[in-house]
Amino acid sequence: MMGISELIGMGIGSNDQLYSITLFVTLLCTCIVIGHLLEEHRWINESITALLFGLCSGIVIMFITNGKSSRILKFDEQLFFIYILPPIIFNAGFQVKKKQFFRNFLTIMLFGAAGTLMSFCVISFGAKVLFTNLDIGSLKLRDYLAIGAIFSATDSVCTLQVLNQDETPLLYSLVFGEGVVNDATSVVLFNAIQRFDISHFNSEIATQFAGNFLTLFITSTFLGILTGLLCAYLIKKLYLGRHSTDREVALMMLMAYLSYVMSEMFNLSGILTVFFCGIVMSHYTWHNVTQSSRTTTKHVFATLSFVAEVFIFLYVGMDALDIEKWKFASDSPGKSIAVSAVLFGLILVGRASFIFPLSYISNFRKPTTQKIDLKQQVTIWWAGLMRGAVSMALAYNQFARSGHTQQPGHAIMITSTITVVLFSTTVFGLLTKPLVKLLLLSSTHDLKHMISSEPASATSFVMPLLDNEEELEADNESGNIRYPSSLCMLLTTPTNTIHYYWRKFDDAVMRPVFGGRGFTRLDSGSSADASLH
Amino acid sequence: MMGISELIGMGIGSNDQLYSITLFVTLLCTCIVIGHLLEEHRWINESITALLFGLCSGIVIMFITNGKSSRILKFDEQLFFIYILPPIIFNAGFQVKKKQFFRNFLTIMLFGAAGTLMSFCVISFGAKVLFTNLDIGSLKLRDYLAIGAIFSATDSVCTLQVLNQDETPLLYSLVFGEGVVNDATSVVLFNAIQRFDISHFNSEIATQFAGNFLTLFITSTFLGILTGLLCAYLIKKLYLGRHSTDREVALMMLMAYLSYVMSEMFNLSGILTVFFCGIVMSHYTWHNVTQSSRTTTKHVFATLSFVAEVFIFLYVGMDALDIEKWKFASDSPGKSIAVSAVLFGLILVGRASFIFPLSYISNFRKPTTQKIDLKQQVTIWWAGLMRGAVSMALAYNQFARSGHTQQPGHAIMITSTITVVLFSTTVFGLLTKPLVKLLLLSSTHDLKHMISSEPASATSFVMPLLDNEEELEADNESGNIRYPSSLCMLLTTPTNTIHYYWRKFDDAVMRPVFGGRGFTRLDSGSSADASLH
Repeated sequence: MMGISELIGMGIGSNDQLYSITLFVTLLCTCIVIGHLLEEHRWINESITALLFGLCSGIVIMFITNGKSSRILKFDEQLFFIYILPPIIFNAGFQVKKKQFFRNFLTIMLFGAAGTLMSFCVISFGAKVLFTNLDIGSLKLRDYLAIGAIFSATDSVCTLQVLNQDETPLLYSLVFGEGVVNDATSVVLFNAIQRFDISHFNSEIATQFAGNFLTLFITSTFLGILTGLLCAYLIKKLYLGRHSTDREVALMMLMAYLSYVMSEMFNLSGILTVFFCGIVMSHYTWHNVTQSSRTTTKHVFATLSFVAEVFIFLYVGMDALDIEKWKFASDSPGKSIAVSAVLFGLILVGRASFIFPLSYISNFRKPTTQKIDLKQQVTIWWAGLMRGAVSMALAYNQFARSGHTQQPGHAIMITSTITVVLFSTTVFGLLTKPLVKLLLLSSTHDLKHMISSEPASATSFVMPLLDNEEELEADNESGNIRYPSSLCMLLTTPTNTIHYYWRKFDDAVMRPVFGGRGFTRLDSGSSADASLH
Repeated sequence: MMGISELIGMGIGSNDQLYSITLFVTLLCTCIVIGHLLEEHRWINESITALLFGLCSGIVIMFITNGKSSRILKFDEQLFFIYILPPIIFNAGFQVKKKQFFRNFLTIMLFGAAGTLMSFCVISFGAKVLFTNLDIGSLKLRDYLAIGAIFSATDSVCTLQVLNQDETPLLYSLVFGEGVVNDATSVVLFNAIQRFDISHFNSEIATQFAGNFLTLFITSTFLGILTGLLCAYLIKKLYLGRHSTDREVALMMLMAYLSYVMSEMFNLSGILTVFFCGIVMSHYTWHNVTQSSRTTTKHVFATLSFVAEVFIFLYVGMDALDIEKWKFASDSPGKSIAVSAVLFGLILVGRASFIFPLSYISNFRKPTTQKIDLKQQVTIWWAGLMRGAVSMALAYNQFARSGHTQQPGHAIMITSTITVVLFSTTVFGLLTKPLVKLLLLSSTHDLKHMISSEPASATSFVMPLLDNEEELEADNESGNIRYPSSLCMLLTTPTNTIHYYWRKFDDAVMRPVFGGRGFTRLDSGSSADASLH
């Protein structure tokens, strides 16, 4: 009895591939079902279930294969960066509360760019000083800088799981927005380290680096916006829905993905691009399609993102038990634990070193209601401590480039990264939900304070059914009451003012061309849009 | 300026991979838009657009790279069988008109299994006799048999595009159903040829082969049904929709895919499995999920299938222009053309050799209204002449196993396969729609005759809004009027009788356990179901 599998089994290792796929899909299904059963549980979330499940499967496979191998699929950076990450980031952009995000844009940039750089410096310097006492083999200056970049990359995927957009909208947008910018920053940093001649570091290289970063940020964002607008324009002009819903859905999915791969191809930050593409698509494109396409895209993007998230944690869990990697570590368990502990401490310190000072700067000259108070600062600090798949991918790239770790120093760095990722994800993942409840949702006063920390976003949060004009009026009114002149407005609350003029521009120019709520042939607008929020 | 692409560019050829993905996604988007613009056109369909587009891109790339290479992605059997084929076949099962399919089950099996065997014999024998005069290098007996299997595999994907389920329901279900069984049969045949010792062919091997095929068919079907039922049961029992729509959608998608890879892993026919899984899911599982999950799954399965189809044709078109392959052929263009022509003639004869005799057998003892008339026979013959990606994959496996073709005979077989696939897809693809119109839809009488060729299926076609009980009654009545006793019923119209008892069993046992129309908590049933048809 034979089938296609044998036919294709004549290729290289494809039967193994079928086994892996079957195993992974089965585990994914199981995780989803178990995650559903544990939904009511207070501490557990899907990521941790998947992570633990992956670990358990790793152990079972290790016993079955008599300790020969626990890895079914080798952790594959390409798989992660090309296929798994884009749907997660796109969906985040697609479902993000746009107002909340743009109101906090400056703070997000401050945390994401300047913060990550500060954290990078602290971790690199700390590692250089503290590791010399541990005698873990030869690490070069380049390696220490790479360590700084690797452990500055927060896990925005996990953050999405522990913070709730509806319960804590401000924190969610701050921490998640920071995560997206942070991803871009760490990757640029990491590449700079591998590229630039660090031994001759001077002001010229620093300027060049800053220029690189700015160009990267702006072009990536622009590319994402452009792709989203093109998609909106195509669907509006050609009126694809007339013939088939499937074509609309296909075009949205494909163009979103196109923005990511195109960005990567041009050596930009795909993460930033696809995030902004998601924002534009939810603002324009989504309103141009038929009602069933709306339902479909909303749910299918969320589903793909959900499956990708569960997959990552399953994958990291399973990969963690690869015996090859732990051989070096088991020779000197003390050293390995010490390195992990040091790294972990550095992450805590590194993050604290920018959250609190930068929050102070961000609060400067703001009205009291818009300030980030200490409790919120602690939560932001805590929620960004998780390290995930991006750190893993960068660590593999730096320390295990030829597949296996040749030097003991490199081997220890790989195992330490895994330890830090597992520990931070499980411990912080388990504790963040209760912490958020304890710190922020304990009293109704706090809850109210947090929600109403920004007036217009509170409107959008409390009254999601408000339609376009009404919202605009509300913005307008609050603007008029608070700020006497537009010049003063721009000085005191620049983001609010920008938002006000943006809305005017959006209604006058953008929506008539690219569609959007209230400017499409098909819908009544508000009812459909309400379901997105 | 650097990005992740360079980071992962340190792997093997991953930057090339990004270029290919970007190119393919761009081409896919363009095909979708152009396909939409040409929708009104009478002859063109999406497949041919994609095929021609692929060819054009191939030519452009050939010129850009100065004739060095036109292949961006090598035709990859694994990619095709593991990722592209499953969504297409699953969606076909999910959207197929179940009644029409099961009413014609015996005819479909006759065409798909016996017919493919007959076609295989004709093509193998014909190739053996006719190729000896052409002097195309050494081909063994095994090769000739492989040729028979390769060119017996019809392209069910293309068939789906040229026949319309609503216009010609009987033909659609016959040709498509045959295609699914045919795929399974050709793959089994192909494997048998590569496995069995053909030089000592005797009755024992023949029996063994027949046994293999039956086991394969039954276990594959059973696995698909089982997975579908398990999914229905899980979703019904756990009531996943209570928490999240995404989980339901994810579970349906993952379990459908699981059925395919599991089947392949057990060396069964994944195509059969996933097809029946689709049928079961649309009959039970789909009715157990929330309304938005229904809309989402319906559209997302159709979209995935649509994108996969366009992708295949684009891929085949681009791969066709690989210069390496045509080097041998260009040395002896006459030979190459002759081989292609011979193969093409054999396909025509091979298909005719079973369609007409088997239709006669199928018509035997049937009432006049249920017979397949000559016009329909010609259409069935014609619609199944296209050869597609399955033939390509099998041909690559047999004749280019080490990547490139070593022998001239093998090289000619590869180029001939490509020629046959391109020619049959474009020519038959272009002509099938007009032919169907000419032969079958020319007079209203014929149309009516065709639709009403089976009484109960006509009910389901004309009145899709009928709900469960009403339909059952309709079946019941027509049964009572036409057939006086159930024994007589079983003898004269076995499928109708089986269907009647199946419906009773379905309502009494299956639906209460696995859900389905009228047996779920959430829906009113008919309105939601009507949108599927």
